[in-house]
Amino acid sequence: MLIVMKSGATPGEIDGVVQAIERLGFRAHVMPGATRTAVGITGNPGTLDPVRFEHLAGVSEAIRVTKPYKLITLDLQPDQTVVRVGDATIGGPELAIIAGPCAVESREQTFAVAEAVRASGARFLRGGAFKPRSSPYDFAGLGEEGLRILAEARETFGLKIVTEALDEAGVDLVEKYADMIQVGARNMQNFSLLRRVGKSKLPVLLKRGIAATIDEWLLAAEYVMSEGNYQVVLCERGVRTFTQHARNMLDLAAIPVIRRISHLPIVVDASHAAGKSALVRPLARAGVAAGANGVMVEVHNNPDAALCDAAQALTPEEYLTMVNEMRGIHRLLSEGVSA
Amino acid sequence: MLIVMKSGATPGEIDGVVQAIERLGFRAHVMPGATRTAVGITGNPGTLDPVRFEHLAGVSEAIRVTKPYKLITLDLQPDQTVVRVGDATIGGPELAIIAGPCAVESREQTFAVAEAVRASGARFLRGGAFKPRSSPYDFAGLGEEGLRILAEARETFGLKIVTEALDEAGVDLVEKYADMIQVGARNMQNFSLLRRVGKSKLPVLLKRGIAATIDEWLLAAEYVMSEGNYQVVLCERGVRTFTQHARNMLDLAAIPVIRRISHLPIVVDASHAAGKSALVRPLARAGVAAGANGVMVEVHNNPDAALCDAAQALTPEEYLTMVNEMRGIHRLLSEGVSA
Amino acid sequence: MLIVMKSGATPGEIDGVVQAIERLGFRAHVMPGATRTAVGITGNPGTLDPVRFEHLAGVSEAIRVTKPYKLITLDLQPDQTVVRVGDATIGGPELAIIAGPCAVESREQTFAVAEAVRASGARFLRGGAFKPRSSPYDFAGLGEEGLRILAEARETFGLKIVTEALDEAGVDLVEKYADMIQVGARNMQNFSLLRRVGKSKLPVLLKRGIAATIDEWLLAAEYVMSEGNYQVVLCERGVRTFTQHARNMLDLAAIPVIRRISHLPIVVDASHAAGKSALVRPLARAGVAAGANGVMVEVHNNPDAALCDAAQALTPEEYLTMVNEMRGIHRLLSEGVSA
Amino acid sequence: MLIVMKSGATPGEIDGVVQAIERLGFRAHVMPGATRTAVGITGNPGTLDPVRFEHLAGVSEAIRVTKPYKLITLDLQPDQTVVRVGDATIGGPELAIIAGPCAVESREQTFAVAEAVRASGARFLRGGAFKPRSSPYDFAGLGEEGLRILAEARETFGLKIVTEALDEAGVDLVEKYADMIQVGARNMQNFSLLRRVGKSKLPVLLKRGIAATIDEWLLAAEYVMSEGNYQVVLCERGVRTFTQHARNMLDLAAIPVIRRISHLPIVVDASHAAGKSALVRPLARAGVAAGANGVMVEVHNNPDAALCDAAQALTPEEYLTMVNEMRGIHRLLSEGVSA
Repeated sequence: MLIVMKSGATPGEIDGVVQAIERLGFRAHVMPGATRTAVGITGNPGTLDPVRFEHLAGVSEAIRVTKPYKLITLDLQPDQTVVRVGDATIGGPELAIIAGPCAVESREQTFAVAEAVRASGARFLRGGAFKPRSSPYDFAGLGEEGLRILAEARETFGLKIVTEALDEAGVDLVEKYADMIQVGARNMQNFSLLRRVGKSKLPVLLKRGIAATIDEWLLAAEYVMSEGNYQVVLCERGVRTFTQHARNMLDLAAIPVIRRISHLPIVVDASHAAGKSALVRPLARAGVAAGANGVMVEVHNNPDAALCDAAQALTPEEYLTMVNEMRGIHRLLSEGVSA
Repeated sequence: MLIVMKSGATPGEIDGVVQAIERLGFRAHVMPGATRTAVGITGNPGTLDPVRFEHLAGVSEAIRVTKPYKLITLDLQPDQTVVRVGDATIGGPELAIIAGPCAVESREQTFAVAEAVRASGARFLRGGAFKPRSSPYDFAGLGEEGLRILAEARETFGLKIVTEALDEAGVDLVEKYADMIQVGARNMQNFSLLRRVGKSKLPVLLKRGIAATIDEWLLAAEYVMSEGNYQVVLCERGVRTFTQHARNMLDLAAIPVIRRISHLPIVVDASHAAGKSALVRPLARAGVAAGANGVMVEVHNNPDAALCDAAQALTPEEYLTMVNEMRGIHRLLSEGVSA
Repeated sequence: MLIVMKSGATPGEIDGVVQAIERLGFRAHVMPGATRTAVGITGNPGTLDPVRFEHLAGVSEAIRVTKPYKLITLDLQPDQTVVRVGDATIGGPELAIIAGPCAVESREQTFAVAEAVRASGARFLRGGAFKPRSSPYDFAGLGEEGLRILAEARETFGLKIVTEALDEAGVDLVEKYADMIQVGARNMQNFSLLRRVGKSKLPVLLKRGIAATIDEWLLAAEYVMSEGNYQVVLCERGVRTFTQHARNMLDLAAIPVIRRISHLPIVVDASHAAGKSALVRPLARAGVAAGANGVMVEVHNNPDAALCDAAQALTPEEYLTMVNEMRGIHRLLSEGVSA
Repeated sequence: MLIVMKSGATPGEIDGVVQAIERLGFRAHVMPGATRTAVGITGNPGTLDPVRFEHLAGVSEAIRVTKPYKLITLDLQPDQTVVRVGDATIGGPELAIIAGPCAVESREQTFAVAEAVRASGARFLRGGAFKPRSSPYDFAGLGEEGLRILAEARETFGLKIVTEALDEAGVDLVEKYADMIQVGARNMQNFSLLRRVGKSKLPVLLKRGIAATIDEWLLAAEYVMSEGNYQVVLCERGVRTFTQHARNMLDLAAIPVIRRISHLPIVVDASHAAGKSALVRPLARAGVAAGANGVMVEVHNNPDAALCDAAQALTPEEYLTMVNEMRGIHRLLSEGVSA
């Protein structure tokens, strides 16, 4: 059930609706939009009678929602969400660039890469302290020590830190050191983890699962939002298909498809989709051309020696060329094109 | 590194090898086989020098392992693992049948289904107390109350309980009430959960991820085993492809492929692969014909009223026919066929 | 539009309906069933008014067909089609076995294999004279010389010959020498070829395309039938997915799904699905257990020296073991199983 | 085998090599490059001894080719092929735009669309006279009448005509009326058709099959080239995956991957990949950003009334906006980007 308030509804009227919902034992989600405020109801076991809400002061209409999701929809919030990470944003007019090493390997390596990231004008530094690895015998990250290095890089370079948490204990640590929590592709349907980050004050970067449909992905975002955290950024990172020439197949149609359903911003992880550095630049450009709000990319000061995903990391030079190309395309599309 | 003992190696010699490994700060995995014992080493950051072990008493050879997995391989244990759950087994001569409702809905429903399961001669009762659901608004199981009902059914009907845990806290509860912990497809690469069940005394049923390769699946089993729990059963439940006529595509070639790599038993979940009850029987028969050690199947006393996956549950009558067909095929293949 | 005749309709009444259809410039397809005859209409540009036919003598009802196919449906013919190839059948009570080399390489090789095929009691000899090869530089078959060798093997061993045609000229030649025309996976939507075999007097074995949906496959059969050739056998041979451990993934759910839509018989090509000989036997058994009307399999007297698909051919000994297992399962399911 | 000539080799020396190859009964393919000429040999049953050619006048080296393809490779021709269609090109500095209706429906419709295409500055008019349709009952094109309309539009608007042939007889007709022969996705491995267009004087637009690997696609081009027609343009049009939100998934990584293997130009068919008009513009922009040499797109003067693929056709207005965006991105990448 979605309660759409009148455009001139007062804070008191909105609060009255929230209280009415909570008195019934359900949960109210207030989502202010540019022209009207909507209040989503979750926690109701079945369908509710709209009449119950339509007589309340300030209510325009109560809509039965038949789609499997509510909070992520344009029905609830017609304007694009702008996720704020300090003074940086994802979903606003600026192209968000999230760059850094696959894994934090050392202070030296992280600082060398962070310097290149800052030089490019990007606002976000990525880097894994906890790495999900297919094999139990592979390098799994430096753990809390890696988080400390990232936090130090934040102070030194003024970048926002985006890093992955693999479980509930990991979220506690990431909250202590970082600015944005990444949920990885393998955990996209780890519902305990989704509920935990849904209770966090930090924004969430939610990667698409390796073979997730758009609906499953949006429902994973719905899990996070249903716990009260509305700062969610979707990250398309390629899906698994029959092809072998790239690590995954970047599904750029997902961007315009989701734009027509959801207000959440979307970024593209060009590195994991590519799996080879030579493919990263073309795919990152394509992502921006398809309308992504930002791009995530792996950069390493010495790709050949990287402990993780060496084949797909860009050198700082390749990375800078790519940033310029992406910004050119983004500017061209933002300003409108004339013949 | 894999240490293969001589066929007549004594317990004391085996223990000497274990101690040598542990003195180096690594982990030893003793896996007794029919003709020889092998000792796997995990936890070593890089490659080890075989010479270091080959002079120890009772050692036949030390083998560098280049494959990504060790403990699951036939190199380590050439005989098929027989997982023991009390007096029932999976991987032995008997066809293992794991049947029951998708979700535990009530004592009445669970007992009605359990009665049919016992009547069929099956040894395992399945039933979900914690259900992973794509939407946060769907029925997610009765939780601990569901586990209590299952435990009661165990006492009444003498069946072993197989049930899913979604997170580490859930494993604690499942250990308290059940006989075997199921790790679901969505959690196949939830490495924190895999490590936790690897520390459990209960055997583990490990479902294949929705788009997992054979290698990723075997490495997930390797995660469990690397923590010391060698009682792992693999469960093929269909993968996601371009087709829409069944819920997932049952990959029966996985059975003979894994047989040539691993000693772990494999069962087939015909219900999740099918998604429609009319397809369950043919697919379950096909699974047994392809060489599965057992079959997992959803049965409901009143499928039309099921709260979860109603479309794929069999009635008790359909289930009994299926069991007879499966046992006929299993007997025929076990006894050898003459023209 | 589908005209269902009354159960006691006379040949004259059926003929009257056919003439009425043809007077309108459309095509009539008379399909006699066990209890009633149906007459399908094709060639009509849009929908027809049922009333136009319902007043004709012997007509029970005229049904508007909204599905994309007509002639392949159980609506048109509720009984399973039995395709007759001389005194052999596919779709009847006997399990059809179609065995032979991938490609005809020589008279000697073909005869050695044909001897093993006859010894097994199979009725059909397969063998390619025209081989579709991904590379223009690979062995593409002996052409008409290969067909002559097959025709000679037919006389010597009393087997029916099933062989592929790649284009319309090839169909002319196959009609001259063989008993059944195979349309390969790559040509499943070669509509010119489908129309050509639809005009043939020989029955057609229609393989599923590498990524064809069930609907596309059935519509390909509809193309053949819409030209008047109703002797069509479907052949499931595996589809392309993200997996790499087998050549293709055998989609056994297709069998029960098609059973509920179509009267056409279905066989399983275990060799192309497997791609490796060790997988052929388990998959062939699984196909029979899932309800296939027959199995197609590659046998070679000297697999290591095969010019085509060497890795997937069985030796005559492996083949005989497989035939016995398949027949055992088929008998068990035909006779019904008792506990 | 690939014979690489010295950079200063004379026409007489090249001819001498060709004659030496033909005397052995093989086929020579002379491919002039910017700096050197290469001569490919096809038709040889096995490997040839390089020494046999290296002593010939003007030969730099003879290379054994182990890859499955020869003629499409950068080894043979290091410079990008520029396919010339009269005074228009694909593969040169200009972005090639191939636009028009899915099917030619009438002179009126074709001319209305052709006018918009000319107005956009595009050089190629597409339009189907022979439409491959999954169902035998769907509109299959106007046939030769459609070709006549296209030829008339060519005269009126000065556009080059690109149209599909479905079989060998169709190629004869397309050669009579059009400028470029399209081979559709369903026919990508129709080897008889590939050989036939390989003998044509017209350039060939070769669409990727619905589930073709890069290798299979390049080998299909190799089939065409091995018959002597080197004017081949590859067309990425999306592949089939588990997703349902777009008709196919556009595989943009294919562009940089093929660039590193082959000299053939690549265009992107945004309409078939999208399946919905709202997705066409973002995907077309992404294709150009990923480095495509051109874009193919369906335009209709009245999309709602289109007889074929109505949902994916752009209006002339949407099309013009798209052309401007694509040209902006192409210009930006051609000129190099400065920060």
